[in-house]
Amino acid sequence: MSGPSHVDVLVVGAGPAGVMCANALVRAGVNVRIIDKRPLKVAAGQADGIQPRTIEVLQASQAYGLADRLLSQAAIMVMAAFYNPGPNGIEFIGRVPDVTAPSARYPYEATLHQGEIESLFLDSMRKEGLQVERPIVPISLQMSDDPKEVADPHAYPVKVVLRHLDRDSGDGDDTETVRAKFVVGADGAHSWVRKSLGISMDGEQTAEDFLWGVIDIIPSEKTDFPDTRNKSAIHSVNGSCMIIPREGDKIRVYIQLSDTDAVDPATGRIDLARYGPERLLEVAKTTFKPYTIDAVPDKIDWWTIYQIGQRVASRFTANERVFIAGDACHTHSPKAGQGMNASMNDTHNLAWKLAHVLHGWADISLLKTYESERRKYAQDLIAFDKTFSALFSEKFRVDNEGHNPTHEEFMGAFQSYGNFSSGVGVHYAPSAVTETTHQAAAPNLIIGQRLLPHLLVRAADAREVNIQDLAPSNARFKLFVFPGEQHAPAIAAHLGRPECFFNKHPRDAFEIITVMQGSKNTVNYLELPPVLRPHWTKVLLDDTDVTGTRGGRIHERYGISRSAGAVVVVRPDGYVGTIVPLDQLAALDAYFAGFMLSL
Amino acid sequence: MSGPSHVDVLVVGAGPAGVMCANALVRAGVNVRIIDKRPLKVAAGQADGIQPRTIEVLQASQAYGLADRLLSQAAIMVMAAFYNPGPNGIEFIGRVPDVTAPSARYPYEATLHQGEIESLFLDSMRKEGLQVERPIVPISLQMSDDPKEVADPHAYPVKVVLRHLDRDSGDGDDTETVRAKFVVGADGAHSWVRKSLGISMDGEQTAEDFLWGVIDIIPSEKTDFPDTRNKSAIHSVNGSCMIIPREGDKIRVYIQLSDTDAVDPATGRIDLARYGPERLLEVAKTTFKPYTIDAVPDKIDWWTIYQIGQRVASRFTANERVFIAGDACHTHSPKAGQGMNASMNDTHNLAWKLAHVLHGWADISLLKTYESERRKYAQDLIAFDKTFSALFSEKFRVDNEGHNPTHEEFMGAFQSYGNFSSGVGVHYAPSAVTETTHQAAAPNLIIGQRLLPHLLVRAADAREVNIQDLAPSNARFKLFVFPGEQHAPAIAAHLGRPECFFNKHPRDAFEIITVMQGSKNTVNYLELPPVLRPHWTKVLLDDTDVTGTRGGRIHERYGISRSAGAVVVVRPDGYVGTIVPLDQLAALDAYFAGFMLSL
Repeated sequence: MSGPSHVDVLVVGAGPAGVMCANALVRAGVNVRIIDKRPLKVAAGQADGIQPRTIEVLQASQAYGLADRLLSQAAIMVMAAFYNPGPNGIEFIGRVPDVTAPSARYPYEATLHQGEIESLFLDSMRKEGLQVERPIVPISLQMSDDPKEVADPHAYPVKVVLRHLDRDSGDGDDTETVRAKFVVGADGAHSWVRKSLGISMDGEQTAEDFLWGVIDIIPSEKTDFPDTRNKSAIHSVNGSCMIIPREGDKIRVYIQLSDTDAVDPATGRIDLARYGPERLLEVAKTTFKPYTIDAVPDKIDWWTIYQIGQRVASRFTANERVFIAGDACHTHSPKAGQGMNASMNDTHNLAWKLAHVLHGWADISLLKTYESERRKYAQDLIAFDKTFSALFSEKFRVDNEGHNPTHEEFMGAFQSYGNFSSGVGVHYAPSAVTETTHQAAAPNLIIGQRLLPHLLVRAADAREVNIQDLAPSNARFKLFVFPGEQHAPAIAAHLGRPECFFNKHPRDAFEIITVMQGSKNTVNYLELPPVLRPHWTKVLLDDTDVTGTRGGRIHERYGISRSAGAVVVVRPDGYVGTIVPLDQLAALDAYFAGFMLSL
Repeated sequence: MSGPSHVDVLVVGAGPAGVMCANALVRAGVNVRIIDKRPLKVAAGQADGIQPRTIEVLQASQAYGLADRLLSQAAIMVMAAFYNPGPNGIEFIGRVPDVTAPSARYPYEATLHQGEIESLFLDSMRKEGLQVERPIVPISLQMSDDPKEVADPHAYPVKVVLRHLDRDSGDGDDTETVRAKFVVGADGAHSWVRKSLGISMDGEQTAEDFLWGVIDIIPSEKTDFPDTRNKSAIHSVNGSCMIIPREGDKIRVYIQLSDTDAVDPATGRIDLARYGPERLLEVAKTTFKPYTIDAVPDKIDWWTIYQIGQRVASRFTANERVFIAGDACHTHSPKAGQGMNASMNDTHNLAWKLAHVLHGWADISLLKTYESERRKYAQDLIAFDKTFSALFSEKFRVDNEGHNPTHEEFMGAFQSYGNFSSGVGVHYAPSAVTETTHQAAAPNLIIGQRLLPHLLVRAADAREVNIQDLAPSNARFKLFVFPGEQHAPAIAAHLGRPECFFNKHPRDAFEIITVMQGSKNTVNYLELPPVLRPHWTKVLLDDTDVTGTRGGRIHERYGISRSAGAVVVVRPDGYVGTIVPLDQLAALDAYFAGFMLSL
């Protein structure tokens, strides 16, 4: 046994939730370790779908360029195609946009092998000197029973014993003791951290018509199915199939299994040895008739069969000192393409809160909002998943009233979930960091939802910029100042007062960005008071781009009065924290005093 | 003396023209060496402006992603601002778009230190195993006097002796003999290669009002001039100035010098020791009054004074075995931001022709089109530069008739040069590779100009794509097939005939891309004959993107009949080589037979 050593945050598990967490923390200057039980990262298979909102999050990620790298490597899923049973097998019904969420900055999903997605974060972390330690598992986790210690953000109340799986246990030094201020259990559906905390999963395993196979193939030249490069939902008398195009020439095929051959009758559990990729593909071939779907031989690099529960953990934290995230707290079907997204967005929500507490900027009570925000989301996700999964099973074909939906009804139902399935609809309820009193100052920009993307130009150089790109995930609050008509001096004066949040809390926690009105042909941004233009890149202009075809009119888009103005506060995770009218600037001070510590 | 060794192409000089050439050649699989006299690449200063057309070329460059990397590092110059003398010093007149060229895909210029631009190519070359050998200079160049050898593409008719400057010359082994099939002299304004060929420069040194200083600074907080992040043209009674924003917070200031203090009266040449950066900045400060322009101390990393001629080499080649490119064949003022662009586009034009000859695909006579195309361009450039430079000197203020132009006339004159200064107006005259007989089949797509950028979607996955991205600089001809109504089978049949170019010349020289008509909601691209869909990414659809707001109507843009169709042949450098109506497909065979060798 070595140790004890001390660490601010110990992240258990280096899947999407874990690497998102560790990267965000190390980039925010937090002392963090991340461990994983696997000796190597995943090489194939697993999750692959990235929703529009997650692309926005990657774009905002401190390791800037994550979205660029994702999009350059991934397949882009623009359309969804639908096939129904006909007299001679399946028949093409039509295609609709895969993403039905008008506010999505990226109107498509991206798909890429999970290992590559994890690499985005691993490479970013490595630049900050952080690497995943592996293969290591926690074997005991003990919370201090001193309430004072548990409440003290400077204390290390969690004792974790780790076992290094690659060390010889014979001489007794394969374990290590770590004292952590915080622990994040991102250790998957069978989470050891969750179990050690005694947290139950609410919900149940689903019925056997939810038994599905999945296989990654490269279609051969014999394939004449025309929608291998679109998301395809196929209903047939033989069961359902779904295609997800993947990077390069690869595609993923989900195949509903009508038999229970893959289930061991003795245990009731799936036994992959009872099935095989060839047999899976044979089921798909029957489903696709009269079309041919055929795989390039020896290019099947992953397949599995699953039967998954739709469950949510009863708690997401123990005393706000140990947290669980990702599959550790919610499991559901992969067909809505939500899993990896929900997981990454869990720790995207948690990481900045941990950083603020550890930096001494925020009160430790801020951490309560992790469970309140993310558990509510997970419950919504399960409800969504139940409905959405049914769309892809036979059950949808005849509804409870015996009504057989039309093609249009089916495609319409698919699209009606666009706001949720794209991830842009996430809406956090009022809390210490989500204050809705003055929503009317910008009625179209919903407090608790993500900052709506919008194009404008920079005042100094007229370069086109998306306002989301001024709100990177750098653990700082962004104050977008819309100074209205002539209110800039008053705002500057408020920011200069000793009782103003700007002077009561650490300056590093804030960035000020001003959105001016005017024309790029004549504006002089140097007329703003210096506090409202900390750098020339931080002043935006509500105007179209140089071609006159894109952007502009952000006041109207957000519903902000051009005369009265407003201040929009965006949380470090990109969600609108509050909006304050310019004649109520003290409300800003009250908002930050609600969860931040004074200097 | 070591050697002789043999090389297919020896590139002399690793400036922008040289590295563009070497990278294109090595990426095309050509055996190439590149040498430079400098021990290290440039660290600061030099050229910095990249025109819209050059950004297109970088985007198409085989080392894909060159444009992405450029644009992520560079400053983007969107607007041009103008100041004129007023009663209290200079006065703001207005701003107009810096780029006035509606067809430009990138409606701005990019600016970045020349060393970084060279690095784009150096890094790309390195991935192919090619590095610049330095410090090395050529000391003799000898062309074979056997006409047969000079005409034989397989021969090595050029003997070059190189001196390795880092080797001890004492023991006599600092030289090396190289026998080359071709030599490219990209060795700058004082080109040794040009001089060794006895090629004269036509034109003359300009008068002393063309004496300018240039200095790279970071504006300090005291600076209240509002247009440091735009291109700014300043006329004052003290002389003219120009600002070019640069990467980061840097800016470049061009300063017209009204005195001749920097010129040594004894030699008539510029002597930098007689001036200094502080004095240059003092001149600028006077010019900018009543505005303040001030530099962060110790951040001036480059400055110079120049007085440049506007000259063009009388020939660009000797026997089409030795070529000169870049500053070696044209010099002009830097103010129009053309220098580096003209240089890179010289070798962009030359490299694919060399590759085709060396691969045995094209007849050696193809190389004659380098001089005919690029010398004509250089002459146009000098004519443009004379007019454009005058805009930025006092001379423009009162024209020959004594008329003082209005502000609007000045800004209008600036914009009237947009097509030329953006680089998108380059128009190569008819030649073996530019055949205009059937221009009427696509009247808006000018044969001899670059392929007009246009957005459409891919048929297989509805992903938005710019047609230029299907024409990368990979040394292949692209045939964009617009099959009209029902003509696809006839085109496929022609491509199958033994007398068709597709079967008479090496298949590797061609790529076929089809532009279908139809809707992304219903199209089935697998209905095309296989020869017209070599891969699912090679079939485009004339439709809008999934948001319905971008792209589509390429038939109308190019003027191609939706019923009759056409085939558009794009040269490997992205210029339209010819256009052929579908009832004249034999014209394709004739076009390629005009310069390609038969199998």
